[in-house]
Amino acid sequence: MTLKNFKITIEYDGSNFHGWQRQKHDRTIQAEIEEALANIVGHRVAVIGSGRTDAGVHALGQVANFRCDTRLNATVFQKALNSLLPDAIVVKTCQQVQAAFHARYDAKSKTYRYRIYNHPVPVAVNRQYAWHIRRPLDLKSMRAAAEVLIGRHDFGAFEGAGSPRSHTIRHVFRAHLIEENKTGYLAFEIEANGFLRFMVRNIVGTLVQVGCGKSSMKIFANILHSKDRRQAGATAPPQGLFLVKVSYDENACSS
Amino acid sequence: MTLKNFKITIEYDGSNFHGWQRQKHDRTIQAEIEEALANIVGHRVAVIGSGRTDAGVHALGQVANFRCDTRLNATVFQKALNSLLPDAIVVKTCQQVQAAFHARYDAKSKTYRYRIYNHPVPVAVNRQYAWHIRRPLDLKSMRAAAEVLIGRHDFGAFEGAGSPRSHTIRHVFRAHLIEENKTGYLAFEIEANGFLRFMVRNIVGTLVQVGCGKSSMKIFANILHSKDRRQAGATAPPQGLFLVKVSYDENACSS
Repeated sequence: MTLKNFKITIEYDGSNFHGWQRQKHDRTIQAEIEEALANIVGHRVAVIGSGRTDAGVHALGQVANFRCDTRLNATVFQKALNSLLPDAIVVKTCQQVQAAFHARYDAKSKTYRYRIYNHPVPVAVNRQYAWHIRRPLDLKSMRAAAEVLIGRHDFGAFEGAGSPRSHTIRHVFRAHLIEENKTGYLAFEIEANGFLRFMVRNIVGTLVQVGCGKSSMKIFANILHSKDRRQAGATAPPQGLFLVKVSYDENACSS
Repeated sequence: MTLKNFKITIEYDGSNFHGWQRQKHDRTIQAEIEEALANIVGHRVAVIGSGRTDAGVHALGQVANFRCDTRLNATVFQKALNSLLPDAIVVKTCQQVQAAFHARYDAKSKTYRYRIYNHPVPVAVNRQYAWHIRRPLDLKSMRAAAEVLIGRHDFGAFEGAGSPRSHTIRHVFRAHLIEENKTGYLAFEIEANGFLRFMVRNIVGTLVQVGCGKSSMKIFANILHSKDRRQAGATAPPQGLFLVKVSYDENACSS
């Protein structure tokens, strides 16, 4: 038996899914892909994602791998998957990788983007891909607060409730806020070696309090250092969040 | 009785509507706005659109007007409408205009944009806002064909079936194809003094045949001049089409 290992990059519109991870009753991305794979190869194949995304969250570059005894090649798998998957899930790339590659364990960093539409009047087109905030946000103070995140910190203050983790220390490599060509759209981008559950959405909810003048860079820093979830702002809604990229060592992915 | 006349600019995501125009059983944009207005003022108010858009077609700048005996001002109407309308319909601007202003009769030109995603692999995010075409399109020949449209022509060849019109002559002021910063997205933009039913989608379907090499600028010109609907290509799907702007004389809109 020659087990092949395939790495896939997946884009999805999470609006109508209960997140990545397979669940008993609800529609999930992982379950849709596993079902499509079972249709192609005739038996159940486990799909290992780089990590979960929550209900309503999107991905431009989620990564997963699956192992399978097959004569099919990567190109055939990609086409077959895309022809079977619902329109809201697309396999953007598929490549055969070395047997040891593991989408979760080998991930070196992840990049998330959170989009905000900051304008007194909402949008209709694209409303499913941003959080609409009416009152003008002070980007300067939000940027100052975002910088506090960079480095190795205990992010316990931004962890969602009921998330058992061995530890809550993560290393943030980048965290910055950009304006999308003066259209009213803002994007908060953050790259780290890993994320706690709801971490990005809790950070964004807390940053928005800074942007609204309800809080400050100093208070934001104190919240981070408190490690106390009750200090942080409300969780930002899921539709603004995109898993943009998962990075690996070149070696891990080679075939 | 002091009848006020309000002009509104409307953005909508047409995905889940049966077009602009009120229908007996199906959900339409006009019906949603009239229902919201009736809730605000307590009686039925007719909303006059600049023209219809078909099922599944979007708008960034549809224009309509409504007349109403009210003490409410434009700002209050805009806020009240947006709080009552579904998320997929947003009143972007509302202003009181002179009594004679009529959104349909006074329209001088309309601009439509048709978006194509031209890439071997589809998108999941934003898929509801473009037509996905796998095979690479030859933009140069499509641009040459698009130029043929400019000027005063009988557009009978691009009219949808069953559209009774007094005549099928329209004046196209602009028609051009742009690339959206090398992302794979193309946008065909066309401005004219008016459009026949399905005209933009039939033009786009025929232009795509040119882009695929199944046709040429010369054949495209012959189709236009034939005035024969059976010559033109298939109707492009609705989700790529946006009514971008409706233009009026400054005078017509003054309050």
